[in-house]
Amino acid sequence: MASLACYVSFAPIRCSSNRDNNPNNQQLNSMKINGTSAMSTTKIEGLTQSSTGLGTTLVAVTSRAETEYNTNTKEQTRQNIPTEKQLVDPYRQGLIIDNGVGYRQTVVIRSYEVGADKTATLESILNLLQETALNHVWMSGLLSDGFGATHGMMKNDLIWVVTRLQVQVDSYPIWGEVLEVDTWVGASGKNGMRRDWVIRSHETGHVFARGTSTWVMMNQKTRRLSKMPEEVRGEISPWFITKKAIPHDASLKIKKLDDKAKYVTTNLKPKRSDLDMNHHVNNVKYVRWMLETIPDKYLESHQLSSITLEYRRECGRADIVQSLCDPEEDEVQQGNDINILNGFSLPSDILVGRGLMGSFDMGPMKFTHLLQIKGERENEEIVRGRTTWKRKISTIPFSI
Amino acid sequence: MASLACYVSFAPIRCSSNRDNNPNNQQLNSMKINGTSAMSTTKIEGLTQSSTGLGTTLVAVTSRAETEYNTNTKEQTRQNIPTEKQLVDPYRQGLIIDNGVGYRQTVVIRSYEVGADKTATLESILNLLQETALNHVWMSGLLSDGFGATHGMMKNDLIWVVTRLQVQVDSYPIWGEVLEVDTWVGASGKNGMRRDWVIRSHETGHVFARGTSTWVMMNQKTRRLSKMPEEVRGEISPWFITKKAIPHDASLKIKKLDDKAKYVTTNLKPKRSDLDMNHHVNNVKYVRWMLETIPDKYLESHQLSSITLEYRRECGRADIVQSLCDPEEDEVQQGNDINILNGFSLPSDILVGRGLMGSFDMGPMKFTHLLQIKGERENEEIVRGRTTWKRKISTIPFSI
Repeated sequence: MASLACYVSFAPIRCSSNRDNNPNNQQLNSMKINGTSAMSTTKIEGLTQSSTGLGTTLVAVTSRAETEYNTNTKEQTRQNIPTEKQLVDPYRQGLIIDNGVGYRQTVVIRSYEVGADKTATLESILNLLQETALNHVWMSGLLSDGFGATHGMMKNDLIWVVTRLQVQVDSYPIWGEVLEVDTWVGASGKNGMRRDWVIRSHETGHVFARGTSTWVMMNQKTRRLSKMPEEVRGEISPWFITKKAIPHDASLKIKKLDDKAKYVTTNLKPKRSDLDMNHHVNNVKYVRWMLETIPDKYLESHQLSSITLEYRRECGRADIVQSLCDPEEDEVQQGNDINILNGFSLPSDILVGRGLMGSFDMGPMKFTHLLQIKGERENEEIVRGRTTWKRKISTIPFSI
Repeated sequence: MASLACYVSFAPIRCSSNRDNNPNNQQLNSMKINGTSAMSTTKIEGLTQSSTGLGTTLVAVTSRAETEYNTNTKEQTRQNIPTEKQLVDPYRQGLIIDNGVGYRQTVVIRSYEVGADKTATLESILNLLQETALNHVWMSGLLSDGFGATHGMMKNDLIWVVTRLQVQVDSYPIWGEVLEVDTWVGASGKNGMRRDWVIRSHETGHVFARGTSTWVMMNQKTRRLSKMPEEVRGEISPWFITKKAIPHDASLKIKKLDDKAKYVTTNLKPKRSDLDMNHHVNNVKYVRWMLETIPDKYLESHQLSSITLEYRRECGRADIVQSLCDPEEDEVQQGNDINILNGFSLPSDILVGRGLMGSFDMGPMKFTHLLQIKGERENEEIVRGRTTWKRKISTIPFSI
């Protein structure tokens, strides 16, 4: 029941040309488990805290809010977090589905969630994943203080940390479009959890995007990864289901870039507004830093079709960040995502993009990314990323 | 029926200690009209376009969307903009109120809309103003292509431009809190329009924030301000009501800062993700640039209680921006917002903030702002701003 909280880590994905499996059919594939091998005793300095310190945060905020707003109203009353499982939330437009364990929320793409081309931005989509995940926990009656931790987790000083997140966007919803976001959780190894999402058109059922993420528990005091206590397993395992949003998740390891990367942006400094409740840089900022390192000309003619992040350590206000980005130039020679057409082997994206004739001048379709903190003696990895891209069909300039 | 679109201009406000008038009571105050004196023939190079070029945008987006998503589904079907007035929108949780002319939307503060202190950010509040304004027009059946333009406006090549926006935030809603946002429009002079908002707690009716804005029409081809054609007046004047969200709007002119301003941030460059549908820098970015020029230490111990922007010209991707900020040091001597307590004259905010004893070490409570494009020969004003602040009651550091 973890949420996709302040930090998300994403991992390598392939851009498959056949994503049209119906996620409504629960698939009984055995799950692929990522990033859970170092469980229980390894001290992980860098992993993200998803609910650390919120007790203190609550005290501070309550004090301020009570004085200014209503001395008789407590923050918890204002938030009104359910203490028992709810089947429907009229305000969040949420609904428990999938035999009582999955969550569906209806959302409308808002005017400020779209970019210059009137389609939802990747950042908006990532925000919706976080929001629906938290609302799932909200509805479950298990939500304690903080970002997605259950009562049993709070009792054991445990928080969720995310090790990987992968999002595939087949097409982008537009301003005013009504969506359904489904999310659910499953086991990931003995002590981990997977959270998946599918974003569909409410009207047609067309799938816009799918996501999957992997989570483990950390003791927020010792900062060591933890086994899942039986108490917590008892809370969350009844919510586990086996279907997967991305059935053929290959989980390719993302290679680590070094200073030879083709594109490098240096001296990136977090701003106050980039910080989340834990005073760490939020995920959307990571993605922005990564994408802004890709040349503009490329971004204008391509759209992102998938992103994977593997999270290594958090980034605070004082850190100075470097964003490295390297194209994968050898696309045509790779075995993945190949279609055969008239004797040519081409990435399927190229066929979607401009057809055969236009396929040779379009540049790379994949990039590897790294955000790191530039240290005096050595650099520290924040997050590795991998993005895949499609060429936009229409690149008619928009009038001003 | 204009929306608060991509650009908003805000103007000087005073932080009043008595904001508890009930906006449900329609007030028959005569309206204050701002910025409409140069109507109809003056060529205004700098004013913001709120729907310029969206015809072209639609063509481009439709082409892309149709091919990738569903060749039989048109963008307009996906957006499903009503062609007749609707009284209820279940997806947007919107409702026509105020005898059929006002709009109320229920919204929940989302996890990613709050900052490090768990309260909604000013940016989130500005986004909600834009969203509810557009949804009001959406419900009216008058919305044509673009950001808030009516059918009659489109026919006459007219777009809305905003000249001023003022927002007062008495207290900030928290994560998960359910709000009601009311918005409505009124006349502003012969050819202008005012749009107001009130944001309340759904549970208690407590008012968190109020906003007001002033709009005029511009011919998007000639870029001249325009009289309101009778056809358009016929569309929108039935929606006008006279009540005001901020009844005692003093509309102080914001002084123009020069290079002597105490705080200056230079070399601000718009990023791709800062651009809106018109490929202009969006408003939230303006506000960020303004606020980030205030020293961190001040921002950590104070919260913004009001902001006003007066918009002068748009800012594009290639512009290099300078953010100037100057504190108003002579607060105690000013005649505005004064309370008399034990013989001391003090701004009311100080009393709200830390009480009398702590009032002398808190620094300025108001700032004047200017964003400008640094030109070779002269600078060009983008937007003037004025912010007022309260000291936070509790500044206990949040744990990590």
